[in-house]
Amino acid sequence: MKEVNASIITIGDELLIGQTIDTNSAYIAQELNRIGIWVKKRIAIGDIRSEILDSLEDQSRTAQVIIITGGLGPTADDITKPTLCVYFDAQLVVNEEALQNVKTIFQKLNRPLIERNLKQAEVPDKCTVLPNRRGTAPGMWFEKDGVIYVSLPGVPNEMKGLMEDSVIPRLKETLELPAVVHRTLLTSGVGESTLADTIEAFETALPPHVKLAYLPAYGLVRLRLTGRGAPREKIEEEVSNLFEQLKPQVKEWMVADEDIPLQEAVSRLLRARGRTMATAESCTGGYIAELLTARAGASSIYNGSVVAYANAAKEELLGVRHETLESHGAVSEETVREMVAGARDRLHTDYALATSGIMGPDGGSDEKPVGTVWIAVGNARRTIALKHFFRFGRDRNIELTAHNALTMLYRFIREEEGE
Amino acid sequence: MKEVNASIITIGDELLIGQTIDTNSAYIAQELNRIGIWVKKRIAIGDIRSEILDSLEDQSRTAQVIIITGGLGPTADDITKPTLCVYFDAQLVVNEEALQNVKTIFQKLNRPLIERNLKQAEVPDKCTVLPNRRGTAPGMWFEKDGVIYVSLPGVPNEMKGLMEDSVIPRLKETLELPAVVHRTLLTSGVGESTLADTIEAFETALPPHVKLAYLPAYGLVRLRLTGRGAPREKIEEEVSNLFEQLKPQVKEWMVADEDIPLQEAVSRLLRARGRTMATAESCTGGYIAELLTARAGASSIYNGSVVAYANAAKEELLGVRHETLESHGAVSEETVREMVAGARDRLHTDYALATSGIMGPDGGSDEKPVGTVWIAVGNARRTIALKHFFRFGRDRNIELTAHNALTMLYRFIREEEGE
Repeated sequence: MKEVNASIITIGDELLIGQTIDTNSAYIAQELNRIGIWVKKRIAIGDIRSEILDSLEDQSRTAQVIIITGGLGPTADDITKPTLCVYFDAQLVVNEEALQNVKTIFQKLNRPLIERNLKQAEVPDKCTVLPNRRGTAPGMWFEKDGVIYVSLPGVPNEMKGLMEDSVIPRLKETLELPAVVHRTLLTSGVGESTLADTIEAFETALPPHVKLAYLPAYGLVRLRLTGRGAPREKIEEEVSNLFEQLKPQVKEWMVADEDIPLQEAVSRLLRARGRTMATAESCTGGYIAELLTARAGASSIYNGSVVAYANAAKEELLGVRHETLESHGAVSEETVREMVAGARDRLHTDYALATSGIMGPDGGSDEKPVGTVWIAVGNARRTIALKHFFRFGRDRNIELTAHNALTMLYRFIREEEGE
Repeated sequence: MKEVNASIITIGDELLIGQTIDTNSAYIAQELNRIGIWVKKRIAIGDIRSEILDSLEDQSRTAQVIIITGGLGPTADDITKPTLCVYFDAQLVVNEEALQNVKTIFQKLNRPLIERNLKQAEVPDKCTVLPNRRGTAPGMWFEKDGVIYVSLPGVPNEMKGLMEDSVIPRLKETLELPAVVHRTLLTSGVGESTLADTIEAFETALPPHVKLAYLPAYGLVRLRLTGRGAPREKIEEEVSNLFEQLKPQVKEWMVADEDIPLQEAVSRLLRARGRTMATAESCTGGYIAELLTARAGASSIYNGSVVAYANAAKEELLGVRHETLESHGAVSEETVREMVAGARDRLHTDYALATSGIMGPDGGSDEKPVGTVWIAVGNARRTIALKHFFRFGRDRNIELTAHNALTMLYRFIREEEGE
């Protein structure tokens, strides 16, 4: 079976100027990967005709699939469609289905339909139109000299709809694809180097078609095994066996043997035991609440959070004693312990975690410098608290605090509930 | 003055597989842009020697500056350094300063220093070493045939430190750079097409060295003017004048005449008036709190949030009446109005906002389908509430709710406080 390679070309000055972070490419890469298409290259270029043409030409030499996003909007800087006409020697024509879609959307939004919007329904006459159920710009599918080109809008939500509805199913139909099998586990509280040393023998002994990757992120490291080949069943079995060999070697630090976020590992643990939790956040400012509620189904394990930024809020909403705040300060073991008790009590949960710290860049003192963070977790039986000292920027300190708090809670629940 | 073009090459399988979102490129592009270097291309490739060599070769034909990130870690899949040795015909040698840095970091972390870590101090003998004060992998600066190559670690925090400390200052010293001036304003509650129609005459009349870009994001659209040339003073004045012409044309929708996030516009408004606010979040689950506290200095205007996911939390922590929840439900005008009153009262603030909705994918009913959201904002004098209906995925519904709530609060404060 021949390997199918893909390139992703994102078009738009906003990517080159750095005003927009490219989340589309990651999504597209994941989806292609899942069906056995290997992304060899991702390219971001501006809204410049010659650059677009050159990139298409270049990539068509090595890729069998080229996904293009962006530059399909209704404004003057969007030039993808006329450029595709040049590349494919095509003419813009109105597509009836796309036109109807534009009209329906504007009717629903109750917005006036202007000339500019109608242009969204024009497509090169050499493409197959992929209907966009979330927006006005249709997707386009071209084939030329054995290469598939797909042009998609840059709006993430619309691009995702088109990938799901049309692009992935069509690619699976059109191409004969190898199997790609990933198995990922999540570790917390250990560095990349120590992990690498621990599993060195395992890594060295891997067969050439199975790769191991280290994916570090703010105190967490994911280990991912990837196997490629055919038939799928054989690869799946092989990667599965290797994964089972790997797990016990990193047991000490493993919090999940799946590719899930840390907060999801906590949620699942609670759900499996029929327990609930609450959070009392000072320095993380709602970030942990957001992590926990970003996925549907949170309400069965998570009752809520008190984001107690002001001291008065800690007293009134969490019942932290005035004397505690007076004598120990907001960033102290005593305060986070009382925050845990208050959150559990007021939000009626089995478990709670609390954070209080100085995230920077200002607000530090000699005694409590910027980066000082207290975290506590507890249930009705006991509460434990730990002091951290993070030496990074505000964003990263918040992220590290959240990950450390969730890891601490995860381990605490496992101890309390039995493994 | 010759234009200086740059390319960014990011190395790492994790980018091609889509496991990591590339935030580094956006940051690097912004920083280069600020000093008048135009990023023409961004490329992401895997940890494959031939791909790295080809990309360096390719990009050196059109770019005068090439920034490379990633592949400098201590594990086996990190091959950037040996590959750079091939490209520059160099040898790996131990750099004493970098070695000392590695040792100091491990001492501080109190972690055992292993052989693998010492390799971090090896660099090609043809580079200038850029010290990394946040990690073990040093940056590297090469010059060859009039092109500058900079290799940086992929860890965002370390990369940023190196850009600030060394790369940007050195580029400014080494190159003669044109001025690039951006002016950006933020609109809310209007579509791209309507904006484009409103300012069509203005856009058409722009001189060729000034560009206008539309940057849409979840109910917000940023308009950015960019002028390039020399001398800086002239470009600045020109862009400034154009910006002042643009502002009144979009006054109706403008929430900021700077490139700041919506929440920062709200914060500044409150700070200028000496007012405070609180949030009572159900469906946004702490996301608005996180937005408001992500920047330092939030504590002067923001007292906190009650993330009342469970109904009991709405009653106990916000004083929403049991009868209200019983007869109207959690997602209702009555409930969000009482949440606003409760948040203002319990958190002792002038203003408050509240959100309650069904974010999906489950939990909808015929009467209140998925996407139904109630938002309220108020102060001591009055409270207003508005029902929305968002028809997207969970993430986007949360984002849209947050943006709509903050826009509604922004306009409410301006009405109440006078413009």
